[in-house]
Amino acid sequence: MNDVTSSPVGLHRVLAPAGVLPQAAERLDTRRDLAADEVRVRVQRLNLDAASFRQLERKHEGDGDAVRAEVLDIVRTRGKMQNPETGSGGMLVGTVEEVGPESPLGLTVGDRVATLVSLTLTPLVIEDGLAAWDGRSEQVPADGYAILFGRSIAARLPDDLAPELALSVMDVCGAPALTARVVSQYAATTSPTSTTGGPVVAVIGGAGKSGSLSLAAARDAGAARTIGVVPHRAEADLLDEAGIADEVTIADARDPVALSEAVAKAGGPADVTVVCVDVPGCEGGAILSTRDGGTVVFFSMATSFSAAALGAEGLAADVTMLVGNGYVPGHADYALSVLRAHEGVRGLFERRL
Amino acid sequence: MNDVTSSPVGLHRVLAPAGVLPQAAERLDTRRDLAADEVRVRVQRLNLDAASFRQLERKHEGDGDAVRAEVLDIVRTRGKMQNPETGSGGMLVGTVEEVGPESPLGLTVGDRVATLVSLTLTPLVIEDGLAAWDGRSEQVPADGYAILFGRSIAARLPDDLAPELALSVMDVCGAPALTARVVSQYAATTSPTSTTGGPVVAVIGGAGKSGSLSLAAARDAGAARTIGVVPHRAEADLLDEAGIADEVTIADARDPVALSEAVAKAGGPADVTVVCVDVPGCEGGAILSTRDGGTVVFFSMATSFSAAALGAEGLAADVTMLVGNGYVPGHADYALSVLRAHEGVRGLFERRL
Repeated sequence: MNDVTSSPVGLHRVLAPAGVLPQAAERLDTRRDLAADEVRVRVQRLNLDAASFRQLERKHEGDGDAVRAEVLDIVRTRGKMQNPETGSGGMLVGTVEEVGPESPLGLTVGDRVATLVSLTLTPLVIEDGLAAWDGRSEQVPADGYAILFGRSIAARLPDDLAPELALSVMDVCGAPALTARVVSQYAATTSPTSTTGGPVVAVIGGAGKSGSLSLAAARDAGAARTIGVVPHRAEADLLDEAGIADEVTIADARDPVALSEAVAKAGGPADVTVVCVDVPGCEGGAILSTRDGGTVVFFSMATSFSAAALGAEGLAADVTMLVGNGYVPGHADYALSVLRAHEGVRGLFERRL
Repeated sequence: MNDVTSSPVGLHRVLAPAGVLPQAAERLDTRRDLAADEVRVRVQRLNLDAASFRQLERKHEGDGDAVRAEVLDIVRTRGKMQNPETGSGGMLVGTVEEVGPESPLGLTVGDRVATLVSLTLTPLVIEDGLAAWDGRSEQVPADGYAILFGRSIAARLPDDLAPELALSVMDVCGAPALTARVVSQYAATTSPTSTTGGPVVAVIGGAGKSGSLSLAAARDAGAARTIGVVPHRAEADLLDEAGIADEVTIADARDPVALSEAVAKAGGPADVTVVCVDVPGCEGGAILSTRDGGTVVFFSMATSFSAAALGAEGLAADVTMLVGNGYVPGHADYALSVLRAHEGVRGLFERRL
C-alpha cells in the first residue's frame, strides 16, 4: 500500500497525456501497489469487445499468433487493452487479490468478480504471455492483474451460471437495460402503429449477444411487436428457433434501402430501433427504418457520430438518437435475469461459448 | 428534364459505392438535368462546417490558397463538399434556377433559399474556381449549381435579416431546437437542484453560434439556470455582455476535471449539458459535468462515439447521451425567432460576419 493521492475515477494512474481521464489516456500506470481506495484483481480471463476482436482478426487474416502478439503489444505499450483502431476494449473476470482500506466497492479478497467498466480504462498487466489463448476467440484465458478504482464497477459472479456464460452476458449488459428503459417510456404513451399501446421495436443484429438480450428486454418492457433483423438465413433460423422475436427478417444492415424495406415488411417502421451489429455503415439504414418521432439506440462501437448526425439531417428524419451508454444502474443483475427468464436467449449464448 | 427514376432521398445520384445513401457516398452524380422531383439551385455562397474549415486551416497552416485548392479538389472529385477527415460539410445559399414538375418542396424559380440539408449529400458543381474567396473564412462566395432531392429541405431567406446573418443562423439551427425540446421535457418535471422546477443547463462553447442560440433557447424553454462555458477571458467578456447566460465560466473543455469543477462552481452539476465546441476530446468532461439522470447533447462533429459510450461507462455515469440531430421540424424558423428575440445572440452573430 503506498500513500499516493488517488482519484475515484483513476486520474492518478494516467501517465500520458496529462489531465485526461484513463479512457482517453495513451498510457496508464500499472504498478501493483494500491492507493487506499483501489482493488487489485488476479485476472483469469479477458473478454475482448467484438468490434475490436474482429478488427484484429481481419487485419491479421485470421492468424491467431499474430492477433495474440498484437494484443500483448497493446497491453504492454498502453498499460490497458484498448484497440487503437476501434477505441474499444472489453471486460475481464478474475479473483479479488487485495482490497485497499478505503475501497467503496464492497469486495472481499477471494471474491470471483467481473469488471463492468471497460478494459479501455483498466490498468492491466499480463504475466503469462497469453500462452493458453489461440488468438481465435474473443474469450482470452490470461494470468495477470488489473486495478479497479474507487468508482469502478465490479459484479460478483452468480452461483447458478457458468462463469463464462455470466461474463458473456455482463459484457453486453448495458444494451438490454437501456433498451428496456427506452421501450417502457414509449409503452407508457400510445403508439400510432399499435392497437395494444406498445411500441414496435426493431433490433438490428437480433441473433447476437446484445441483440438477443435486447429483443427479450423489449418484449418484457412492453413492446407491441419485436422485429429481429439478421444478415442471413442461418441466423434467421437460429433466431426463429429461439422464439424471442415476433418477426425475423433478413437484410444487410449496411444497405439502407434493403434494411428499411425489410423492417417495413415485418411490421415497421419501428418506433424504437436498436443497433447491435458491429459493422460500420449501419447509421442510415437504422434511421430510415425508424418512424418520425421514434428513437434509434446505437450500441455498436462501429457507429460513426457524424454519419448518424448528418444522416438524420440528410433524410430530414425527426428521430432521437441515443449513444448506447454501457452503464445503467443494476444492468448486470437485469441482464442475468433476462437470460434466466428466456430459454431462447440462453440457448443463443450457450452456442457461442 | 430527363426521365430517370428518382428517389426522394437521392439514391439515383449515388455513383459509388452502390446502394449507399448520398451522405455515405464517395461520389455523386452532378449532372444538370433534373429528375421530376428535383430542384436546381444557382449557388451564391457556401458556409463550411466549422470543424471542417478548422481542419483544413490547420492542415494547410492558414495558407488560404491551399485551403481553396483543396475545397475545389474535394468538390470536383466527390461531386459534393464533404471533408474526408471530419466527414462534415456545411450548407449553401442560392437562388432557385429550375423546379422539377413533381418537386414537393414548394419552391418557385427566383426564390432566394438556404439549403438545410448538409453539403455532404448535396450534388454540387463549382464553376468560378472560388475566385472570390480568400480561403480564410468559413463563408465562401461561389458560383455554381446544386441539386435538391424530393426530401431535401430548403428555407426561403427572411426579408428582415441580412442573407449572411440568416445563413449563419440556419447553419446551426438544429442545436437550439433540440436544446429547447430537451430542456422543456426536464422543465415539465421537477429538478432536484432547483427551487423553480426547471433544469440547470450548461452549454460548453456558449459564446459560439450554436452555443449562444442554445443558451437563449434553454432559458426560453424553462431552464432554472443557464451556465455558459468558454475557453478564455475574451470570450467570457463577450458572453457576459450578451447577457444570455446566468453564469459565465472559463474552462478548457478537453480537461474533464477542470470543466466539471468550473460547472460545479457555477451552480452545477448540470441536468442538461450541451456540447457546442468543435474540438475533439470533450466527451469525458461533458459527462463528468452532468448529474446522474441528466442528459448530454453532443452537437460537435468532433464528437467520438466510442469516447462518449465508453467514457460514460468508465465513469459509471447514468446519463442519457444524444447525438445532436441537425433536423427538428421547424428548426430554421425557430432559430431565427431566437435571434430576433435576443439582442445578445444577434450581437454575437453579427460580430462574426
